Amino acid sequence: MGRIVVKFGGTSVGDVERIENAADKVVAEVKRGNSVAVVVSAMSGVTNQLVEYCRKISPMYDAREYDAVVSSGENITSGLMAIALQKRGIAARSWQGWQVQIMCNDVHGKARIEDIDAEAMNARLDAGEVAVLAGFQGVTSKNRIATLGRGGSDTTAVALAAALGADRCDIYTDVNGVYTTDPRIVPRARKLDKISYEEMLEMASLGAKVLQTRSVEMAMKQNVPLQVLSTFEEAIGSDYPGTLVTKEEDIMEKQVVNGIAYNVDEAKVTLLNVPDVPGAAAKVFGPLSDANVNVDMIVQNISQNELVTDMTFTVPKQELDRTLEVVGNIKELEGTEIRYDKNVVKVSVVGIGMRSHAGVAQTMFNALAEKGINIQVISTSEIKISVLVSAEYKELAVRTLHAAYGLEADE
Amino acid sequence: MGRIVVKFGGTSVGDVERIENAADKVVAEVKRGNSVAVVVSAMSGVTNQLVEYCRKISPMYDAREYDAVVSSGENITSGLMAIALQKRGIAARSWQGWQVQIMCNDVHGKARIEDIDAEAMNARLDAGEVAVLAGFQGVTSKNRIATLGRGGSDTTAVALAAALGADRCDIYTDVNGVYTTDPRIVPRARKLDKISYEEMLEMASLGAKVLQTRSVEMAMKQNVPLQVLSTFEEAIGSDYPGTLVTKEEDIMEKQVVNGIAYNVDEAKVTLLNVPDVPGAAAKVFGPLSDANVNVDMIVQNISQNELVTDMTFTVPKQELDRTLEVVGNIKELEGTEIRYDKNVVKVSVVGIGMRSHAGVAQTMFNALAEKGINIQVISTSEIKISVLVSAEYKELAVRTLHAAYGLEADE
Repeated sequence: MGRIVVKFGGTSVGDVERIENAADKVVAEVKRGNSVAVVVSAMSGVTNQLVEYCRKISPMYDAREYDAVVSSGENITSGLMAIALQKRGIAARSWQGWQVQIMCNDVHGKARIEDIDAEAMNARLDAGEVAVLAGFQGVTSKNRIATLGRGGSDTTAVALAAALGADRCDIYTDVNGVYTTDPRIVPRARKLDKISYEEMLEMASLGAKVLQTRSVEMAMKQNVPLQVLSTFEEAIGSDYPGTLVTKEEDIMEKQVVNGIAYNVDEAKVTLLNVPDVPGAAAKVFGPLSDANVNVDMIVQNISQNELVTDMTFTVPKQELDRTLEVVGNIKELEGTEIRYDKNVVKVSVVGIGMRSHAGVAQTMFNALAEKGINIQVISTSEIKISVLVSAEYKELAVRTLHAAYGLEADE
Repeated sequence: MGRIVVKFGGTSVGDVERIENAADKVVAEVKRGNSVAVVVSAMSGVTNQLVEYCRKISPMYDAREYDAVVSSGENITSGLMAIALQKRGIAARSWQGWQVQIMCNDVHGKARIEDIDAEAMNARLDAGEVAVLAGFQGVTSKNRIATLGRGGSDTTAVALAAALGADRCDIYTDVNGVYTTDPRIVPRARKLDKISYEEMLEMASLGAKVLQTRSVEMAMKQNVPLQVLSTFEEAIGSDYPGTLVTKEEDIMEKQVVNGIAYNVDEAKVTLLNVPDVPGAAAKVFGPLSDANVNVDMIVQNISQNELVTDMTFTVPKQELDRTLEVVGNIKELEGTEIRYDKNVVKVSVVGIGMRSHAGVAQTMFNALAEKGINIQVISTSEIKISVLVSAEYKELAVRTLHAAYGLEADE
């Protein structure tokens, strides 16, 4: 019937018993008449151990050697999964990145897949064999192993699904889908049956760490329906028990707001008394961009004094020191006072229905105001509104907004 | 100056600190002006863990998948060793079997190396880079990973040395050389400075497990001088602190007897009243050979009865059950009584000087007789004499012979 790619993350293949459990799911898909390619991560803990070995020998390791070392974890799982499938009477073989070949650029440690030669694998799938591909890795034009960065196996799975022309890519993980918000904060958060790529991208990059952002981008570009589902529940992918990430057109009932995301990994930087001349923003953000700092939210306020202005922006906390150093060295900002605050959280409401609905922002601002939550920065896109508030309001803000947009599951 | 291959076994690279220690030895060789290729085993314990995973999932695992899994251990070490060398300011890169390529036949799990394309590696060695090759593995013509069987990294090292035209292959391990006998039995056993390939083969296959037999055969055939030395002592290979395994012609003073080996892994099988007709031996050993039983010592006695004869032979203990089954099913042996004894030890004296010296056997038989040790079976070759005795005499026989041939080190 269909051709599907199923991917198992590290906890789903965390030990031999779990590999066997995952193999059972693959067998069930094969028995439904599907042709299946499997992508596996390293057994949980293995990659961390290998990274630790490299760091212990030299924190300044050669990324090519790091890749040769850390890619081994996935090689191990792929062979073990093939053995587990064969034991269940299913023809199967493992594939390592260089065997396929999964061609990558040579940005070792966070390479990008450039091409997949799926011909040999396709022939074997057609012959009824299950392919088990080691995720997270590929091979460069120089015949060296490259890895795709943390969470890269999701990207491998989506890229393989695109190359094989698969009907669907199922991402088995330890949660049973994408929720309207973090269930640890809102116990009545609701599992979404469907979500658009665009919303998922906002949810993922805003802190709902279910899928690697790059894999969602690739799925959107290649038009691969992606399902997030649990390895530890009984249903298999073909039963659609998880959350399907798909095209906006395939979602009949578009919610105005589909989820509330939050991100505590950003810090706020404020520049007071920046000379208010044309090009002032470029003077600030040019050097930050050169230093590879990912600036997120930006606002510029009109100051009391007409000759100067105030600027506020957010950066990842881990890039804050670099940010302060870069900004402190900008000649044009000599009279400027630099302040920063790590004690902030970005809370966002996300929904494709927003495009055709007014009043979404108003609901947000009113709800937060009622609880006495002060908004420090606002930024918006077509399908999301984000506000920066003091970190102490994290739970209150998320719960308030989740309720304000009626996202609760039925009791 | 020279080009050498150095190989580190599992205990020599057992953890990060030991990998660093091994890297120091490589650096010392490079600083002497040598061009160095390194072959590494898996960190000790890793291969066992991977084998255990395979067995746990399915004792009947597919050998191709087993190979894909267990070869990962060497991949990890090779990358870590390259990082450790780079940290020391030495240009280095890791190579996996498929990158070289180390071409093997497809007898997965115990493949043989058929060809090594050393061109790319040679060019890099010429440019001053250290090559770090993952041992124990190669790639088949079908582009699958194959492993060479336990201890296969020794074979990788020798094959690489031959392919590179290296001057020497140093096998770093946890002992500092080959001894006249097992020092646990004879504390005054003496380290040999040199030993011939032929003697080493007899010593290795007789139970002195320092080097994989196949690697010694290959070294002999390819004429690669092989040095066994300790990773945990200070001297490096170029100081010749270990035992050099080399051509007979390179050994000036040929000892009549160079070592006493023993082997407790064989069982004795006796067939009483075998019909004494031409072809009787073939009737017995043909089916055993067909069943892949490795028969070692064979003697045929004249029986009291002229129409029948007695036959005694030894087989590996782990092949004893198979042997008894095969022999029990031979039609021509219907009136034959089959006895076996696992409680035996084979003790051997080995020496190339034996070729030109008479009386070696006599010394052996007298020495054992004086201690009241009964010899059950005798077999001889050009450079060794082996006797089978009751297992309880193991230590006594080894010590007696070691003394009888004057092999003790000076006190």
